[in-house]
Amino acid sequence: MDEEDLPILVDLHSNVYFDDEEGEVVILDRRTLPEKVSEYRCENYEEVAGAIEKMVTQSLGVSPAAGYGVAIAAYKAREKSKTEMKNKISEAVERMKNTRPTQTSLHYLVDEMAEIARERIEGGKDVFKAVRSKAYEWTDHLMNISRKLGKYCSELLDDGDTILTHCYGGPAIFFMGSLAREDGKDIDYYCSETRPYLQGARLTSFALNQGNFDVTLVTDGMPAHCMRKGLIDKFITGADRISLDGGVANKIGTYQISLAAKRHGIPFYAISYTGPDPETPTYRDVEVEKRDPKEVIYFRENRISPEGVNAYYPAFDCTPPELVKGIVTDKGVYSPESVSQYFDR
Amino acid sequence: MDEEDLPILVDLHSNVYFDDEEGEVVILDRRTLPEKVSEYRCENYEEVAGAIEKMVTQSLGVSPAAGYGVAIAAYKAREKSKTEMKNKISEAVERMKNTRPTQTSLHYLVDEMAEIARERIEGGKDVFKAVRSKAYEWTDHLMNISRKLGKYCSELLDDGDTILTHCYGGPAIFFMGSLAREDGKDIDYYCSETRPYLQGARLTSFALNQGNFDVTLVTDGMPAHCMRKGLIDKFITGADRISLDGGVANKIGTYQISLAAKRHGIPFYAISYTGPDPETPTYRDVEVEKRDPKEVIYFRENRISPEGVNAYYPAFDCTPPELVKGIVTDKGVYSPESVSQYFDR
Repeated sequence: MDEEDLPILVDLHSNVYFDDEEGEVVILDRRTLPEKVSEYRCENYEEVAGAIEKMVTQSLGVSPAAGYGVAIAAYKAREKSKTEMKNKISEAVERMKNTRPTQTSLHYLVDEMAEIARERIEGGKDVFKAVRSKAYEWTDHLMNISRKLGKYCSELLDDGDTILTHCYGGPAIFFMGSLAREDGKDIDYYCSETRPYLQGARLTSFALNQGNFDVTLVTDGMPAHCMRKGLIDKFITGADRISLDGGVANKIGTYQISLAAKRHGIPFYAISYTGPDPETPTYRDVEVEKRDPKEVIYFRENRISPEGVNAYYPAFDCTPPELVKGIVTDKGVYSPESVSQYFDR
Repeated sequence: MDEEDLPILVDLHSNVYFDDEEGEVVILDRRTLPEKVSEYRCENYEEVAGAIEKMVTQSLGVSPAAGYGVAIAAYKAREKSKTEMKNKISEAVERMKNTRPTQTSLHYLVDEMAEIARERIEGGKDVFKAVRSKAYEWTDHLMNISRKLGKYCSELLDDGDTILTHCYGGPAIFFMGSLAREDGKDIDYYCSETRPYLQGARLTSFALNQGNFDVTLVTDGMPAHCMRKGLIDKFITGADRISLDGGVANKIGTYQISLAAKRHGIPFYAISYTGPDPETPTYRDVEVEKRDPKEVIYFRENRISPEGVNAYYPAFDCTPPELVKGIVTDKGVYSPESVSQYFDR
C-alpha cells in the first residue's frame, strides 16, 4: 500500500513530526477531529509534554511525541556547551517520563535517546540529528508493528465479515481491514462511539472512513442488540494491557461488550502492541485509573446533568480470559491460556 | 408525601395542564432539561399533537398531553354549534391517535373522551369541562399507578441498596426510593446516561436529584464494570412493552446491561405501567422501531463523526425472560414465567 494512501490518523509519521524549517514539533490535534484537521505546534519540550498531558495526541501518538520532545530539547541546545546539552536532555527525558509515569515503551524510548545523546556528546558529535533520527525510527517501528498486527488480524477474518471495534485501537485496526481486502476479503466495520471521549465516533470512524471502508456508528448501549440481530461477526479492539493470564485491560465499555459477544458466540480478539505485561500476573491485578468525573457530566462544552449529580469515570475495564478468544501480538495470535508463552521465543 | 415536594418531572400534573386564564395547554418542555425548566404553550390541538411528535414530552407525559389536546379542541369550539363541536372533537381524537399509532393507553383515553363528548353534546351539556376533567382524572390515575408500582418496587429493596436504572422509567423510579425511605431504607441511584437522547443524564438524574437522592451518572458502557466493583445491588428500569413470555422491550441498552447483571448475580426488575401486552406472545415478536440515525451522528447540535459514516439507531431492544427476575405491575410483582397470569385477576 502506498504511504500516501493512508488515512492521516493511521500514518503515525503524520501524527507527530519535526518541522526542520520552523524548528518545531508538529502534532496532529486529535481533540478537534473529525470536524477539523489541525496542527498543534510546540516550540520546546515543555509544550510537547503539555500536549501529551492535554490529550492533543493519545494512544500510539504518545511515545513518538515524547521522542520528538527530547529531540526539540537537543535542537534548542544545539549551540550550547556540552554540559548544558547534557542537562537539557536529562530534563527533557524526565519531563517526558512524567507525562505517562506507567507507559513503559515511552520510558524505554527516551532512556535510549538519553544514552544516544550521552555518547554523541562525549564523542563531540551532533546530538540533535541522532535523537531526531531515533524518534523517526521509533515511529517507523510502530508502523511496522501495526502492519504486522494488522496482518495477523486479517488472517482471522472471513470474506463478508463485519467487525465491531470499541475506542480507537490504533493503526492495526485499519490495517487488518486493508490487508484483508488485499486478500480479496470484503470487510465492514461497526464502531461504538466510546463515551465520554468519543474515540470511536471521532477517531476510529474517521480513520476507517478515510480508508474507504463502510463504517456504521452505534452508541455504547447498542452492541448486544446488534449482535442479536446478526450484524456483527467479530469483536476486535486494542488493549491497554494484557495480564499474564490472558485478561484484557482496555477502554471502559470493552468488558460489557465482551459479555454480549460471549452470549452470541462472537469471538473477541484484543490487539497488543507491546505483548503481555510481565508485571501483571492476572486481570484482577490491574488497578483501574479513575479520571475526572466532569468528563461524564459534560459532553464537550455542554453540561448534560444538573448540579448536585455525581459521576464516576473509570478510564478502562478488565475482561477476564474466559471471554477472550485470542490475543494478537507481534509474535502471532495467542489463546489467553498460552499468552505467557510470548516470552518463550 | 406532600404533592408540593415532588420533583417537577415526577408530578405529572405539572408536566401537562390546562391554563384556564389563557385557554392554553401547557407542557413541561423535556427537551431543554436539565439546563432550563421551560413551558411549551399550545393554543390548539394541532400544536399539542406537534409537541408530542417533537418529543416536547415523552413517556407518561404523552397520554395526558393527548387528553388535554382533545380538551383544548372542546374549549375552542365551546361556543360553536353541536355539529361543529362534534366534528372538532372527532378531528382532535384522530389527530391525537396519529401521534402515537401504537400506544394503546392513549387511544383508550381519547376514545373515552370522544364518548363523553358525544353524550354531553346530545344532552346539551358543557363539553369542555367534562373532557378537561377526564384528562385530569387520567393524569391522577397515572400518578396513583406510579405510586403503587413504586410501592411494590420499594418492597424489593434492602436498606443500603444502590439501584442502577437506564433511561427514564417514569415517576415509579422516584417513588420506589421515596417509599423505601419512608420504610427506613437508605437507597442510592446510578443512572446510565442513555445515548443518544440522554434520558438518564437529563431526566432521571434531574428528577432523583430534585428528590434529594444520591445520584451517580455513568456512561452506557460502564454498568458491567460498576457491577464487578460491587457498586450496584439491583437493576430496575421501566418497560415499553412486556411480552406474554415475560420478555422486556425497553430503551436500547437495557438488554446489554441485563447480560452484565446476570453475570454478576444482580436481579433485573422491569416496571410495567400497563401490564403485559396480550398481542405480543414472545419477546421475539417485538418489532424494534428504527429512528433517524442522525441522532447517533449528532450530539445535540455537534456532529461527532465525519460525513460518509453511517449510523444505526434501534430505539429499543428486547431482554429475554431468562435475564429478568421480576416484572412489577399494578397487580404486583410477577416472575417472567407467570406474567401472563396478570390477566387472571
